[in-house]
Amino acid sequence: MTTSAVHTPRGPVTRKDVARYAGVSTAVVSYVVNGGPKNVAPATEAKVRDAISILGYRPNAAARALKLGSSETIGLVVPDSGNPFFALLAHAVEDAAAELGYGMVLANSDGSLAKEKRNIRNLAARQVDGVVLASCVFEPELADLESSEIPSVLLNHAAASPGFNSVGVDLEAGARIAVEHLIAHGHKNIGLAIGINVGNELDGREVGWLNALRDAGLPEGPTARSEFDRAGGYAAGKRLLASVNRPTAIFASSDMQAVGILRAIHEAGLSVPGDIAMVSFDGSTESEYTWPALTTVAQPVRVMAESAVRALIGEGRGGELQHRIFPTELIVRQSCGCP
Amino acid sequence: MTTSAVHTPRGPVTRKDVARYAGVSTAVVSYVVNGGPKNVAPATEAKVRDAISILGYRPNAAARALKLGSSETIGLVVPDSGNPFFALLAHAVEDAAAELGYGMVLANSDGSLAKEKRNIRNLAARQVDGVVLASCVFEPELADLESSEIPSVLLNHAAASPGFNSVGVDLEAGARIAVEHLIAHGHKNIGLAIGINVGNELDGREVGWLNALRDAGLPEGPTARSEFDRAGGYAAGKRLLASVNRPTAIFASSDMQAVGILRAIHEAGLSVPGDIAMVSFDGSTESEYTWPALTTVAQPVRVMAESAVRALIGEGRGGELQHRIFPTELIVRQSCGCP
Repeated sequence: MTTSAVHTPRGPVTRKDVARYAGVSTAVVSYVVNGGPKNVAPATEAKVRDAISILGYRPNAAARALKLGSSETIGLVVPDSGNPFFALLAHAVEDAAAELGYGMVLANSDGSLAKEKRNIRNLAARQVDGVVLASCVFEPELADLESSEIPSVLLNHAAASPGFNSVGVDLEAGARIAVEHLIAHGHKNIGLAIGINVGNELDGREVGWLNALRDAGLPEGPTARSEFDRAGGYAAGKRLLASVNRPTAIFASSDMQAVGILRAIHEAGLSVPGDIAMVSFDGSTESEYTWPALTTVAQPVRVMAESAVRALIGEGRGGELQHRIFPTELIVRQSCGCP
Repeated sequence: MTTSAVHTPRGPVTRKDVARYAGVSTAVVSYVVNGGPKNVAPATEAKVRDAISILGYRPNAAARALKLGSSETIGLVVPDSGNPFFALLAHAVEDAAAELGYGMVLANSDGSLAKEKRNIRNLAARQVDGVVLASCVFEPELADLESSEIPSVLLNHAAASPGFNSVGVDLEAGARIAVEHLIAHGHKNIGLAIGINVGNELDGREVGWLNALRDAGLPEGPTARSEFDRAGGYAAGKRLLASVNRPTAIFASSDMQAVGILRAIHEAGLSVPGDIAMVSFDGSTESEYTWPALTTVAQPVRVMAESAVRALIGEGRGGELQHRIFPTELIVRQSCGCP
């Protein structure tokens, strides 16, 4: 950066000019321009807007960011904002950021580690005040983020990562509740549809399924591993239906997978919960509208998003690193066999 | 803005220092920092990253924005990014912006005109280079946007608005194709589930439904007006099923509504398409996984998003205002009665 850049003329109209013209304080001009934080009476606002229009004033966010050392925005990286679960998460993060006066830049990694790293770099270059990462980075790669020195928080992250703030749910406990509910319905052959995870640890949902079966003295049912989306669930469902020892119940590790499994079951001419009972995981809106409606383990998405955003830009930011784990809740509908 | 703000010291490390330390040009440092536009060999990139880390360099987006008079971001305002249709749209707009090197700030209006106006003001204050509006503003209110002098484009907008670039689909032609398909299946009593629109014009989908029936010499079937989402569809479905002259087929104005209608039909113990055939509108991924899979009129969401983004920040930006209308396409699955 050179000082000449800074002196590039941008028109002489300042906030002070607008305030003088409208007969209000510069603070009031700021409230009108920024839509807050304080409310302005409609008549006053109209005067300020007239002055802005007549004088041709344009607020200079870049100068403000330079002064504050903050762009008052955060970044959010998700694998796919078109996936209903991440769409819900993105809406919740945007709400939480807006609550604190911050904007949210959304970036999709589309499941590509290269694109994810590029997104993080781009966000750093845009000087966001922090990044919420709800994506699929391999932990060793996170070091990159450290070196770029942006505050960050991992969202949708079940395990603690040294050196990072993170927020997640207790996957293992949630899965256990789901499987125990199916056991209580009398099922003895409970299959598992589980997503493909990067990393070398067993997914907490698989651990929860295993432990619940073991504690009940039941054998492991068949498993199918596939993508966490609808198409992945459809493929997993077809495989579970074709297994030698077809399960009488399935625990699906995401609502999206469950939607695909339901399609496979319907296509096979079988019924849910009559022939095969199901419980899934996430608690998305879609799970309420499948046929039959899904009994599901709900994640507290809004609370998690708020917690992640506050860790980045809230009052307690910059404090000790924390790994916050939230509990899940079983929402009972019809797919499990409950009336 | 005062010049003193501009001279606030931000640490002495510049891109030039990094380039000198790493033994590369400042352009190469820029490529590494911004993730492009040109690729950098991994070994070179590692040297630059080491230099950045050792010197503690942080690229200054605010100074760059001040120099360029551009934040290299666009804004997107949607009613609800958690709604799968708008989630898909948001992903497509983000991709199109990223393609041109721009970031995307996402803002939800949650169906509130007051929040929408506040969002637009906030985006203006952040000095985004333009705003894509895929929301529900009343046209008279759009004047506000003009006075704030941000380039803007209306996305998902079927009718032209004087003074604005806009992008939409031919709702009327799409609805006509859907209804004519149901007529070809032999239906003579075709109901309509339609959303609640602001403004005082008939929704193009309702016009298309009406015209297709009229041209075939068929009477109007029952209609139900409700929210464009799943819950709205569920309510509309229950009303259509309870109508004196129950329809043998329904045209639903959105996939979300159709999902709710399917639930109402299943709960009533009826089957689709046996008892009631259906065609819906949008072409979302969810429509492929309902039971039965929905025959739907698909909107070319990605093409529309690209067109909107290019009108804002592409090569032809700033040209004559245009209202671009894209054609829809009937995707035939099972809900209509096709084998």
